[in-house]
Amino acid sequence: MAEKADPRIKFGILGCISIARLARAIASSTSATLHAIASQQQHSADEPAGFSPVEGVAAKKLYGSYEELLDDEEVDAVYVALPTSHHARWAAEAARRGKHVMVEKPPALDLEALTEIVEACEGSGVQFMDATMWLHHPRTVAMKAFLSDQEAFGEIKEMHTSVTFKVSPSFLKNDVRVKPDLDALGALGDAGWYCIGSILWAADYRLPRTVTALPGTVFNEAGVIMSCGASLQFEGSFVSTFQCSFLSSMTMDMVANGSKGSLRACDFVLPFDEARASYYTSSGAWFLEGLAGWAPSPVEHAVATDRQQVVFMVEEFSSLVKGIKRDGVKPDLKWPEISQKTQLVVDKVKLSIDRGGGRQCRNLIGLVLLVFFAIIVNFLFLL
Amino acid sequence: MAEKADPRIKFGILGCISIARLARAIASSTSATLHAIASQQQHSADEPAGFSPVEGVAAKKLYGSYEELLDDEEVDAVYVALPTSHHARWAAEAARRGKHVMVEKPPALDLEALTEIVEACEGSGVQFMDATMWLHHPRTVAMKAFLSDQEAFGEIKEMHTSVTFKVSPSFLKNDVRVKPDLDALGALGDAGWYCIGSILWAADYRLPRTVTALPGTVFNEAGVIMSCGASLQFEGSFVSTFQCSFLSSMTMDMVANGSKGSLRACDFVLPFDEARASYYTSSGAWFLEGLAGWAPSPVEHAVATDRQQVVFMVEEFSSLVKGIKRDGVKPDLKWPEISQKTQLVVDKVKLSIDRGGGRQCRNLIGLVLLVFFAIIVNFLFLL
Repeated sequence: MAEKADPRIKFGILGCISIARLARAIASSTSATLHAIASQQQHSADEPAGFSPVEGVAAKKLYGSYEELLDDEEVDAVYVALPTSHHARWAAEAARRGKHVMVEKPPALDLEALTEIVEACEGSGVQFMDATMWLHHPRTVAMKAFLSDQEAFGEIKEMHTSVTFKVSPSFLKNDVRVKPDLDALGALGDAGWYCIGSILWAADYRLPRTVTALPGTVFNEAGVIMSCGASLQFEGSFVSTFQCSFLSSMTMDMVANGSKGSLRACDFVLPFDEARASYYTSSGAWFLEGLAGWAPSPVEHAVATDRQQVVFMVEEFSSLVKGIKRDGVKPDLKWPEISQKTQLVVDKVKLSIDRGGGRQCRNLIGLVLLVFFAIIVNFLFLL
Repeated sequence: MAEKADPRIKFGILGCISIARLARAIASSTSATLHAIASQQQHSADEPAGFSPVEGVAAKKLYGSYEELLDDEEVDAVYVALPTSHHARWAAEAARRGKHVMVEKPPALDLEALTEIVEACEGSGVQFMDATMWLHHPRTVAMKAFLSDQEAFGEIKEMHTSVTFKVSPSFLKNDVRVKPDLDALGALGDAGWYCIGSILWAADYRLPRTVTALPGTVFNEAGVIMSCGASLQFEGSFVSTFQCSFLSSMTMDMVANGSKGSLRACDFVLPFDEARASYYTSSGAWFLEGLAGWAPSPVEHAVATDRQQVVFMVEEFSSLVKGIKRDGVKPDLKWPEISQKTQLVVDKVKLSIDRGGGRQCRNLIGLVLLVFFAIIVNFLFLL
């Protein structure tokens, strides 16, 4: 049997949006193979229809429609690299046809659409995972161990994350992430996904009590978010903030502060160096005698890796798929849960932005008082 | 004449609250001398009344009342180290008697009280300065030069600062900063003063358009702020956040992000090392080929110093006083302006906290609709 001959998980990719990294990761993974690519995009004259060339990567099959790829019984798992507005339809369809599903982040435009995908996966008993790579990096595991250390870090109190990058004029005009019909969440769904995800990760996936957008959201002409932020407040006096943007210099900062120690990373979404990722910890810092300074200063910890984080992700996903396919293991529900909770908070930030969140309530209080006064005058008339 | 024999500025210190550092700085400065200390505090049995001993520091005169020190015509300048609630009275009184005034931070409980001090200084033609030391460190000058570099940093877009330290149970019970009658601003006036000051410093002392407290303010039993945060939004889509606390591990983080570069420091309020202060810059960061990482990572810049920042502050203040006293130069109005703007924003954060700032306006909107409905029903009755 062919399956026994090649034990690797056969991936099919739907769409051509930034698939290069994942396609290469699949190619370089020992547990997965790129079986097929399907594209329905409009192509320029120098690109063959139905195929988006990825340098150094070859798929066994190329399809001109997503339907055809999903009809291919050899495909074990699909990676949905379509604009976000198309995720729900195609990821759910893939799941209904028994394909395991990995979806580019943000996995959906809102929780309702994501739930459609997740329920389709549950119904078919297939694995769901969104393609948030940094969660699979060994550094992330090491940082989490520090955050969980009651002696060194204690209880989490404050956190700030910032994921920003200054996009090109061409991106601002053409990228799917600036188009209301394709990826209406803009910077919130893209860079903000990492910010919110990192805060929930640090909070052990507890959900925040309040989600309040910061003032100063920037929209493009079509109303898509180019820059925004929010505060997330949790039980136990843990308060976090984040800022995400397409309009400022590249940052991927995370600072988490506990009752006893602090954690910092400047590149948490993607390490500066694919072979070596650093994070910084400090515990029990206090003033030196005579206030001559304070100590300890943050200590660097470097995690060496032999693979890019995207490869770790593909291998983790493939391993789960293998377990389900070969050993009858149940899908790991941790991954859809992480996605759904992150998406829920994205929804709440969006709602708070739409409602003008973070605005002072002062004017409304004035209005309420005025109206009460009017009622009293009214009643006096009645008497 | 005695004045010619000793050209140093003669300092008098009012009060004994954390005067050790400043007393030593005056002693080690070549431009100032500690002439007198006045204390009216209640003392424990093992402390002589009217004198708080500062190891290794000797004042020429010790007074048992502030009045006596202010009557001493030899005193050029006073450092007001009283609880914040007493600043306005004594700093203004010192100014009216022709003494130059340096006030411990926060300089006052609110802008009104600070303005009383500043106006008394203006009326007497004396120098005013609050004792925010980090503004006088050479590193601060170097960091500002980077922020002002249009090529390397560009226009400021986001900033987050965090000043926190976990105080002892004894501090939580006894320190002036937890007492509503002494320093009702608590962590906001102490740690938050640095956060707000650093954001205004980065914003070239423009004032924010909106000031909104973050949810999750923590108060002690007496209603004093132990932990809080806010967002400050400026013209030009610059949005900043800060968090200050007496309840979490020590941090003094500043991250400022511009359109072209970013600036970081982990110890901006007080360098880890008094001889060497670092900050980190990065400009033009972008993804590497194949998304294998990104570059450049932040570059460390170290500023070596031969003095503590408190000495730089005392020398800057003494130099201004000398200019006024000997050369008829006008007081430098930059310093009261910085203090007043910082205090104004402290006031606004406090107001936003008192008003439940950061809360969603949703419930109020519902209330307004309800009340309008009631009015309409009312009018129907009238008809």
